[in-house]
Amino acid sequence: MKSTLKIAIAGLGTVGVGTVKILESSRELLKARSGCDVTVTAVSARSKGKDRGVELSGYAWFDDAAEMAREADADVFVELVGGSDGIALESVKAALERGLSVVTANKALLAAHGVELARLAEAKGAHLGYEAAVAGGIPIIKSMREGLAGNQIDRIYGILNGTCNYILTKMEATGETFGAVLEEAQAKGYAEADPTFDVGGIDTAHKLSLLAALGFGVEVNFDEVTVEGIETITAEDIAYARELGYRIKLLGVATRTALGIEQRVHPCLVPLGAPIAAVDDVFNAVVVNGDAVGQATFEGRGAGEGPTASAVVSDLVDIARGAVLPTFGIAASALEPLKVSAMEHHEGAYYLRLQVIDQPGVMAAITVILAECGVSIDSIIQRGRAPGESVPVVILTHETKESVMMTALEQFRDQDAVTAEPQLIRIENF
Amino acid sequence: MKSTLKIAIAGLGTVGVGTVKILESSRELLKARSGCDVTVTAVSARSKGKDRGVELSGYAWFDDAAEMAREADADVFVELVGGSDGIALESVKAALERGLSVVTANKALLAAHGVELARLAEAKGAHLGYEAAVAGGIPIIKSMREGLAGNQIDRIYGILNGTCNYILTKMEATGETFGAVLEEAQAKGYAEADPTFDVGGIDTAHKLSLLAALGFGVEVNFDEVTVEGIETITAEDIAYARELGYRIKLLGVATRTALGIEQRVHPCLVPLGAPIAAVDDVFNAVVVNGDAVGQATFEGRGAGEGPTASAVVSDLVDIARGAVLPTFGIAASALEPLKVSAMEHHEGAYYLRLQVIDQPGVMAAITVILAECGVSIDSIIQRGRAPGESVPVVILTHETKESVMMTALEQFRDQDAVTAEPQLIRIENF
Repeated sequence: MKSTLKIAIAGLGTVGVGTVKILESSRELLKARSGCDVTVTAVSARSKGKDRGVELSGYAWFDDAAEMAREADADVFVELVGGSDGIALESVKAALERGLSVVTANKALLAAHGVELARLAEAKGAHLGYEAAVAGGIPIIKSMREGLAGNQIDRIYGILNGTCNYILTKMEATGETFGAVLEEAQAKGYAEADPTFDVGGIDTAHKLSLLAALGFGVEVNFDEVTVEGIETITAEDIAYARELGYRIKLLGVATRTALGIEQRVHPCLVPLGAPIAAVDDVFNAVVVNGDAVGQATFEGRGAGEGPTASAVVSDLVDIARGAVLPTFGIAASALEPLKVSAMEHHEGAYYLRLQVIDQPGVMAAITVILAECGVSIDSIIQRGRAPGESVPVVILTHETKESVMMTALEQFRDQDAVTAEPQLIRIENF
Repeated sequence: MKSTLKIAIAGLGTVGVGTVKILESSRELLKARSGCDVTVTAVSARSKGKDRGVELSGYAWFDDAAEMAREADADVFVELVGGSDGIALESVKAALERGLSVVTANKALLAAHGVELARLAEAKGAHLGYEAAVAGGIPIIKSMREGLAGNQIDRIYGILNGTCNYILTKMEATGETFGAVLEEAQAKGYAEADPTFDVGGIDTAHKLSLLAALGFGVEVNFDEVTVEGIETITAEDIAYARELGYRIKLLGVATRTALGIEQRVHPCLVPLGAPIAAVDDVFNAVVVNGDAVGQATFEGRGAGEGPTASAVVSDLVDIARGAVLPTFGIAASALEPLKVSAMEHHEGAYYLRLQVIDQPGVMAAITVILAECGVSIDSIIQRGRAPGESVPVVILTHETKESVMMTALEQFRDQDAVTAEPQLIRIENF
């Protein structure tokens, strides 16, 4: 084993700086744990002059991350630049080509190029660590790749995006609109200036595609994740859900079904009593179902300097201890193409909110459509009569097929009395 | 890397048989994950003839586990015999001496001899895996040894014994006595015929001492765990706790304090809203506080065939993948002697139930004792007056020192009006 592990870090934002801080402040502890001196030797970022609150003068500086990957005196390349292509991809490939191990927090990169990079790492005998890419404060990659290795995994689901969870928690607490809470979250730094990836569910989908690959031994397939964001969730939906015994959470769910793998990201109604319903604010949680272990639940902070840097460092300690582990749990060449179970085959219960003109016959029209589609109703709420005006009707259905609900939805849209796009939210009765 | 990993299993109870089942039924999956054929070559148990529901005829049989450890054609010795000494200790030492890696579910053994065995493993370049020894369904050993390696750990606490948690959950649900629920649990196989280790807190203390060693980099020190069991908890205590907004759980808590390490196992009042309060039945949960990660929570089944065998197999996959990791997170020689923070220095709030004669001046006597000790009262419940007879008085205190509460307790015992041993339960306001 080496006595020193030399680290080159590309990207000196919050996580990069956090990683440098831990490596400096916990030097002795990490040496005791890993058996070697884990030392930063080179760094790269866009602007050299910027004050980042850490002393960087002892490290070689590179303006270009790819150049650093090719030339730095390093054993490990840490990629914290971000983005699914461009310099992140170029530099990670260059590092692996050179036989360096790579640690990355970049879910977008791995969601797009995970299999290719895993193959490259394997060919070069390098370790590709990405604990920081999914729920930083939760060692979920390690738990699935190693801790639950004795299990056939049937389902993985979780709250994987802290921004969305913060927004939904806050909307429920204050009754404010999505837009108002988003603005607040942006002001506090909990949401990006361009929040599309977070609130649109893309970030959750990136992470889910990695967990699915790891859990099911399949090629990462981000394109086959069904993705819906939380932008259309209203304070009204949250209040109705609460009244009906549910909370609304943005979940990523990957399930092994008879037809293939179902990967979906969308807002869900989860029962108030379900542990996942109690996961609030910026916290993440992941639930894994395995044949031997039953259900295992992990909860912690999903993002932020400390948790994400902690995850980066855990990968570095692994590498220092000599780990060269299969990126997605099995040899990259053995990963099977993901056989998709299309969303139309999904079965579940649904929350439906229709905005309708309060006039005679409307309720009959709605219930007849559902009856004709074969959807059975669990409960209906309609109140606050306002003859001739638009009122909400909220319906919870029993379990039915997604394709059936889509047909019903089409018919609702065709009704003159339905004045707005129907709101449909899936229910997960965990 | 080897193409075959040969496994010798000592002990063919539930977990041993469960392990054989997983290795047989998931052979291809484990091969894909570990890169080699994980194959049982030898087994040992007390009675060869017994039908265990698995085919064992293909494996070499040993009547004596130590002989198997010395002589079997094996790379890994799996110890599932149990007991802190005797054949378990002898066989594990023999296996390590021979340079075999060892996997064990035996917390009693490691609590008593963990440091010695870790040193031996290290000297021989062997891996000593014990994921199955603590909360089988939760990969907590791996998470602490590796996943949180970038953190200085401040506190670890959890529900580590499924039997106790089942009993307490059931007592609360039914209002039955400890004795009645214990009998039921024994009938269902949730509690051993001799339940002392479980209900007396010893089993939890074994596990806590291992987590403390791992978290704090100290020598395992089971003798310095303060241990109280759940035998004295009454249905009345549970009902009062509930009324006051708490549930009673048996927790193991290890904390780094300015004075040293505090290790304690005892029933606790935990607030109804705390996530750990919602962990019911045979489930376990572990909460770890680290400087970088903040709080990480893990929940899953603690015992039983599947979860424990899953943990054994995860250790085998680690070994198959080439892991030789430091048993307690750092080199055995670097573990520091555990500097104890004695229980008298503990500070916390307390639940106190006094059985007193309902007569004039009693409440004054009680509150004067607390006042003179400097203990401030958060709330008092006394109801159901029965002049001249014995009635319960329940008091919640504010934060105070354990030593102070012990002095107060002495004085309560000296009061003629106090008719039974006072009940004192610590409160954890997580």
